[in-house]
Amino acid sequence: MITERFPRAARCDRIAPFHVMALVERAQALAAAGHDVIHLGVGEPDFATPPAIVEAGRAALSAGQTRYTPAIGIPALREAIAGFYQTRFGVTVSPERIVVTPGASGGLQLLMAAMVGPGDGVLLSDPGYPCNRHFVELVSATPQPLVLSAAAGWRIDPAAVAAAWQPHTRVAMFASPDNPTGNVLSREQIRGLAAVARERNGALIIDEIYQGLVYEQPAETALAVAPEALVLNSFSKYFGMTGWRLGWVVAPPALVPDLDRMAQNFFLSPSAPAQYAALAAFQPDTLAELERRRQVLAERRACLLEKLPAMGLKVVGNPAGAFYLYLDVSAVTDDSYAFSRALLEQAHVALTPGVDFGPGHQPSRYLRVAYTCDLPRLEEALARLSRFMETL
Amino acid sequence: MITERFPRAARCDRIAPFHVMALVERAQALAAAGHDVIHLGVGEPDFATPPAIVEAGRAALSAGQTRYTPAIGIPALREAIAGFYQTRFGVTVSPERIVVTPGASGGLQLLMAAMVGPGDGVLLSDPGYPCNRHFVELVSATPQPLVLSAAAGWRIDPAAVAAAWQPHTRVAMFASPDNPTGNVLSREQIRGLAAVARERNGALIIDEIYQGLVYEQPAETALAVAPEALVLNSFSKYFGMTGWRLGWVVAPPALVPDLDRMAQNFFLSPSAPAQYAALAAFQPDTLAELERRRQVLAERRACLLEKLPAMGLKVVGNPAGAFYLYLDVSAVTDDSYAFSRALLEQAHVALTPGVDFGPGHQPSRYLRVAYTCDLPRLEEALARLSRFMETL
Repeated sequence: MITERFPRAARCDRIAPFHVMALVERAQALAAAGHDVIHLGVGEPDFATPPAIVEAGRAALSAGQTRYTPAIGIPALREAIAGFYQTRFGVTVSPERIVVTPGASGGLQLLMAAMVGPGDGVLLSDPGYPCNRHFVELVSATPQPLVLSAAAGWRIDPAAVAAAWQPHTRVAMFASPDNPTGNVLSREQIRGLAAVARERNGALIIDEIYQGLVYEQPAETALAVAPEALVLNSFSKYFGMTGWRLGWVVAPPALVPDLDRMAQNFFLSPSAPAQYAALAAFQPDTLAELERRRQVLAERRACLLEKLPAMGLKVVGNPAGAFYLYLDVSAVTDDSYAFSRALLEQAHVALTPGVDFGPGHQPSRYLRVAYTCDLPRLEEALARLSRFMETL
Repeated sequence: MITERFPRAARCDRIAPFHVMALVERAQALAAAGHDVIHLGVGEPDFATPPAIVEAGRAALSAGQTRYTPAIGIPALREAIAGFYQTRFGVTVSPERIVVTPGASGGLQLLMAAMVGPGDGVLLSDPGYPCNRHFVELVSATPQPLVLSAAAGWRIDPAAVAAAWQPHTRVAMFASPDNPTGNVLSREQIRGLAAVARERNGALIIDEIYQGLVYEQPAETALAVAPEALVLNSFSKYFGMTGWRLGWVVAPPALVPDLDRMAQNFFLSPSAPAQYAALAAFQPDTLAELERRRQVLAERRACLLEKLPAMGLKVVGNPAGAFYLYLDVSAVTDDSYAFSRALLEQAHVALTPGVDFGPGHQPSRYLRVAYTCDLPRLEEALARLSRFMETL
C-alpha cells in the first residue's frame, strides 16, 4: 500500500495543464477507434527529419558518438551554428557565444535559472507560448503578463513594455515569429525593446525557434539590430528535428560561464547523437530541402488566409511567420474550448483552444490552427469545419 | 559592442563549478600535446553503448521515430521498464508509475520542481553527487547537507537523518550505490529512512542510477522494501547510454499527474530515438553483455582494492557498488586538489578531487578514482601514482 501524501510545491498549482493535451488524447482515441482525424492542433510539422540529418545520426551511432559531450555542446556544432548566422543572416557571432541545449526548452531553463529567482519579474506576452511562464515558475520568479490587444493585431509596443516594466522586472521575453499569433517583430520594434531593457539594466530574450519560417519577408535574427539580446533557437521546427531535442542559446560572453556551469549541473550534456546529426543541418542539400518545405507551408498558409475569412472566421493580426493562424471565432461561439471539443467529436478536426495561450487576452474568443498537414487534407478540414459551423 | 551587464540570479553564486572540469580540460590539453593521459576522473564507463541498442537506435532513425513522444515516455518503454522491475527484482511496479525523463537529471529536476520551493529544505549527503544540491538551488529551495563520518565508513544512519530533519524539511535524498563512495544501502537502512520520511509526511528519494553495478551482493531496488520511495534511475551507467540522455523516475501514482504536466512544460518529451533504442536494453543478449561488463568492472575493483592500501592509500567505507573508490590521501597530502593537479601534470593520471563532493566532509583529504579503463591501463596508472608519491 503506497502512501499518497507527499510534499507538493506551491508551483504545482501555478503550472496549468495544456488543454490541447486532453484534446490530443481524445483525438488519438478517436483515430484508434477508426475515425479519420485531421490533426491541426500540435506545434509539430508533418515533415520528417531531412534525410541527410537522419543519415548523419545513423553514422554517429555506428561511430560510437554516444558519450557525454561538453555541457554546452561539441565545438564543431557551435562553430557550425555561428557560421550559419554569418552565411544566412550576415551577422557575426563568435562560437564561444553559442550554448547548445536539450531543445530550446533547455535553453530557456538555463536563461531563467541564471537570471532570475524569487522576487524577480519576467515580462511575457499574453497570448504567448504557455511553457514560458512555467519556466519562470520553475525558478520561483514571477511571470508578468503583458496582455496584447487583438484590435492592434497583437502588436508588441516597446512603449507598452516600458510602461509595464516594474522595479522588480529583470527580463522581457518575446517570440518572433510568435506562437500562437505568427507575429513577426520588425527591426524597429526589436531596437525599441532592446533599448527599454538596456535602460533598465534588464535583459531582452528573443525566442527565434520559428526562425526561417517566414512568408512575406526574408528571415532575420534580432542579433542584427540588438547584439546584446539573448536569443533562443532550436533544431525542432525549421530543421525538422522535434523529437531529437536539440536547441541553442546565443548569449553575451559574460553570461556564458554561468550558463555552462548550470548546463553541467542540470543536463550534463545535450544528446550526443543529436548533436552529430545536426552537423548535417547546414549542408546545402538540407537547406534546399528546408526551403522547399517552407514553400509548401506558404501554400497552405495562402489557402487558409483565403478561405477562413470567407467562412466568417477572422485571422487576427498579421501571421507572417511560424505555421500558425490565430482565429477569432467569437462570431460563432463564446467558448472556443467547447467549440474545439465539439469540432473534434463531430467533425474529427483537432485545433488548439486559446485557453492554453494565457488567461488575459480573452482566450475563449480564439483558436489556433497549425497548418501541419498537406493541402488536400487541409481543404478537407476546411470543408468539415464549414459543415460543422452550419450545425451550430 | 555588447553590454555586459545582465540580471544575475543569486543562485549563480551558490552553484559551484565542477573542479574536475578544469582538470578534464587540462587532461585534454595534455593529451592533445601528445602526452599519454590516463583518465580516471569522469563518471563515465569506457564501454560503448551495447550493439543491440545502437542498432535499435539506427533502425528508429530509419523508421522516422524522430517526433515528439508523450511527455513521460512512449508506452512501450514504460512497460518495458516496469517489466524489468518484475523479472530482475521481483517487484511489481505499474507502468503508469514510470516517468521517462531526459537523463536522471531530468527526473531529479521534475521531482524537485513538484515537491519543493522557497523555504523548503532537502536533506542530502555530504559527500554526495554535486549536482543534487544544485537542483535544489534551481527551484529556490534549501539544500541541507548531512555530513557523513569517514570513521563510520560514510554510513547513512536513519537516526541521524531523523535528528537532522527540520520543520521545513520536505525531502531526503540518498544514492545506492553512491557516488563518490560506492556505498550501498542495506534493506534495513532503506526501511529506516522510509520510516523517518513517512513519520514526517516527507518524501524519500533513492537515486539508483548505479543499480546493477554491485559486486558483493545481488542488485536490488529500494522499492522492494519501501514501495512509497521515489526512485531515480538512468540508462546511462549500467546500460551504457550516457550521451543519449535517458532516465526514468518511479513515482507514486498520486504524483504522476504533476510530474507529467511539468514534463510537458519543461521538456516536451525525452529524446525519441533514445527511447526507441532503449527498448533493446532489456533484451537477453544486451543483458548478457552488461553482465560481462559488470564482471570486468569487478576485476578492476579487486585490483584497486588490493593495491591501493599497499601503497598507503586508504579506501574509505565499503565501496560495494558503482565504479568508484573514495580514497583518503591525507597520509600523503593535506590538499587533495593540489595533489590531483600535480598528479595530472607530472604523471598524466586524472582523478577527481574531493572538493566536488561537498564542503562538509573534509574534502581536501579525499580523491575519487573511477575505474573506467582496462586492467593494463589501470596497473600503469597505479605504477605512475606510486612513482609520483615517491617524489612528494
